[in-house]
Amino acid sequence: MTVEVLNIGTELLLGSVQNTHAAWIARQIFPLGLRVARQTTVPDGSAIRDAVLETCARAEVVFITGGLGPTTDDITREVVAELLGRKLHADPAIRAHIEARLAARGYQLLNRMLRQTMVPEGAEVLPNPNGTAPGLYFPAVSHPSWALPHFFLLPGPPRELQPMFSDFVMPRLRELTPDIEAKECRVYRVVGLGESAVEKLIGLELEQNPALEVGYCARPNEVDFRLIGAREDLDAVESRVIEILGKHLVSPAGEGMEEWIVSELKRRNLTLATAESCTGGLLASRITDVPGASEVFHEGFVTYSNSAKTQILGLPPELIERHGAVSPEVACAMAECAQHLAKADFALSLTGIAGPGGGSAEKPVGLVHIGLARRNAATLHIECRFSTDRATFKQLATHSALDLLRRELLVH
Amino acid sequence: MTVEVLNIGTELLLGSVQNTHAAWIARQIFPLGLRVARQTTVPDGSAIRDAVLETCARAEVVFITGGLGPTTDDITREVVAELLGRKLHADPAIRAHIEARLAARGYQLLNRMLRQTMVPEGAEVLPNPNGTAPGLYFPAVSHPSWALPHFFLLPGPPRELQPMFSDFVMPRLRELTPDIEAKECRVYRVVGLGESAVEKLIGLELEQNPALEVGYCARPNEVDFRLIGAREDLDAVESRVIEILGKHLVSPAGEGMEEWIVSELKRRNLTLATAESCTGGLLASRITDVPGASEVFHEGFVTYSNSAKTQILGLPPELIERHGAVSPEVACAMAECAQHLAKADFALSLTGIAGPGGGSAEKPVGLVHIGLARRNAATLHIECRFSTDRATFKQLATHSALDLLRRELLVH
Repeated sequence: MTVEVLNIGTELLLGSVQNTHAAWIARQIFPLGLRVARQTTVPDGSAIRDAVLETCARAEVVFITGGLGPTTDDITREVVAELLGRKLHADPAIRAHIEARLAARGYQLLNRMLRQTMVPEGAEVLPNPNGTAPGLYFPAVSHPSWALPHFFLLPGPPRELQPMFSDFVMPRLRELTPDIEAKECRVYRVVGLGESAVEKLIGLELEQNPALEVGYCARPNEVDFRLIGAREDLDAVESRVIEILGKHLVSPAGEGMEEWIVSELKRRNLTLATAESCTGGLLASRITDVPGASEVFHEGFVTYSNSAKTQILGLPPELIERHGAVSPEVACAMAECAQHLAKADFALSLTGIAGPGGGSAEKPVGLVHIGLARRNAATLHIECRFSTDRATFKQLATHSALDLLRRELLVH
Repeated sequence: MTVEVLNIGTELLLGSVQNTHAAWIARQIFPLGLRVARQTTVPDGSAIRDAVLETCARAEVVFITGGLGPTTDDITREVVAELLGRKLHADPAIRAHIEARLAARGYQLLNRMLRQTMVPEGAEVLPNPNGTAPGLYFPAVSHPSWALPHFFLLPGPPRELQPMFSDFVMPRLRELTPDIEAKECRVYRVVGLGESAVEKLIGLELEQNPALEVGYCARPNEVDFRLIGAREDLDAVESRVIEILGKHLVSPAGEGMEEWIVSELKRRNLTLATAESCTGGLLASRITDVPGASEVFHEGFVTYSNSAKTQILGLPPELIERHGAVSPEVACAMAECAQHLAKADFALSLTGIAGPGGGSAEKPVGLVHIGLARRNAATLHIECRFSTDRATFKQLATHSALDLLRRELLVH
């Protein structure tokens, strides 16, 4: 079945809001054996009509997100109804839901909200427990000479769309796809090898296998090597992939570095602490993104100022005076102090210059020193340079810190 | 000029990688008076051809991202060259650049990388200081009976695309758009009012103004109210917008809450500290995302475990025993201890249950207590519930904490 995603929203095309729906929906439907063949974004307003029409010629299932709200630029419901020649009727149950929701928050029902209660003929209402606008499902229509795809109209806000999709769209998709052979996607994250080298070492060999689909995605400091196929076909080559890529593999397929580190520490009953300057808490936040991180991560320090480094972590002020806050010596001392304070097995530290200001010829913007203190072993140190914007710098620097710990856990 | 963005990449349609290019490019070109009229994503491989052809019928400028790498699924360069009937020639300067880059990292030049040195006739090379694959620019072609848009072929990795766009694409776009009247986009972030209420209070009135384009975007707990127009037209209505939306405005137009808080603290020479449990450092990370945050934020504590709360922050263990770690009392004590340790004017604290595990009937997943300690004033406390996934919970909880401080700064 050919699936398309059509995202409606001027804010998406202005770049003021990141479109997260397309990727999220793709991940939900993959286990059903469904892939998104094309994703399109058009602005609110008249462009919706053309875009919906085009999908009719190509797709069997179309997810349309956004444009169901109460304001004048929300016209998805009306455009699709008109295109399919369906009349709209007010639905008293939706009105009651909206009134109850507003009353609970002390808001008034305004006349313009009543548009959200309109349901096109032949459409099924998808309840929205997290917002006012319900979703709508138009089952496919097939005539001898023409056909219309299944249309799912979904609300724009992710926290309304996501539960609606899980609770009401997925069951309908399962009915539509009982016979499709589900495939798995395994992503092997590779560090220390370029994209071409991964292809040469293992990719070309596996591309010969007609049961597998092979792909690559270059990311900062790493390459994602992707295999799609039936579970047994993937299992059959897994040991070969691990043998060839060996120490260059970040973690088992499909698992991010944070997940792998947390589960490895948990397995070995070890704990980790953090002391961050330039990354301002992002390292701790990434670790605690993993459910259950509390078993291995008990505390972190964000010591942004020099006085915080001396007073909270207990660094000797002379150390900072002599070497500067951005130095291997301070990075190592931060890690050691954090490890000691937290009584942890490991502590990671970062000190650097995130920019845009604060750099010098000797210590430019983008420089970062990373320390890893270990119980009963010498502290490790690495130095990196990431001349990029502040947000990317923080991502790359925390990534390098996690990778330093990953390598340590692999060898010891 | 009609602009389209075409993103190539199977990983984008599998959902394993978030497409950030479309939004980023949109923000770059907006100040030139250019808007993205449509954005499309297609997988690597044969679908590229159709999608490129379709843009020819609609657009005057087309940005194509991805598919320029060395692996077999990277065929954007070849497809566009074939479509435009251009022969490919090896470019020795690109080869020298790739060889130097690889040598510096100890990688070998593999035969398959040579595809990246091929340049189509009539295309201009856009240098890539951050990767191997150069970009390509095909200027528009205009015949009496047909026309081709300007094509910019750009590499997929953001840290290669972004500098290339700023340094080499933007100057060419400025030459193409000397006469376009630049517009501004002001986004007023509104809290405590629904989308319909914003429309009723101010939106419908401003929609009557032909010089303005009005839009709305509902977000968790807030609404973005968007005005696009010439600077003088926006200035003319600004005071009216502020008068009507008043205390519901998060911050001046276009500024995020973190930026506003950091600049307001800086202006008043005040400092802030943080003590986080369930948000694991995200609050500190959001504050330190703002350049210059170091002037107002000196330190933060990530006290994930109970022992960290007592040993690092100095909370009485009896307090946690009596009320539980997720309680108003512990939230307030965390804030007060952090303020005291950091000698700060304010300290924000969060303690809650991020999930998916750890909830109970009395204290369900999604519950969070937020404290705000103030110098010479009683500590404030709020309680929120966000039953959602872990990542969204962390976003919403830190957002509420920032909003608590924002309101405090507005009234005192």
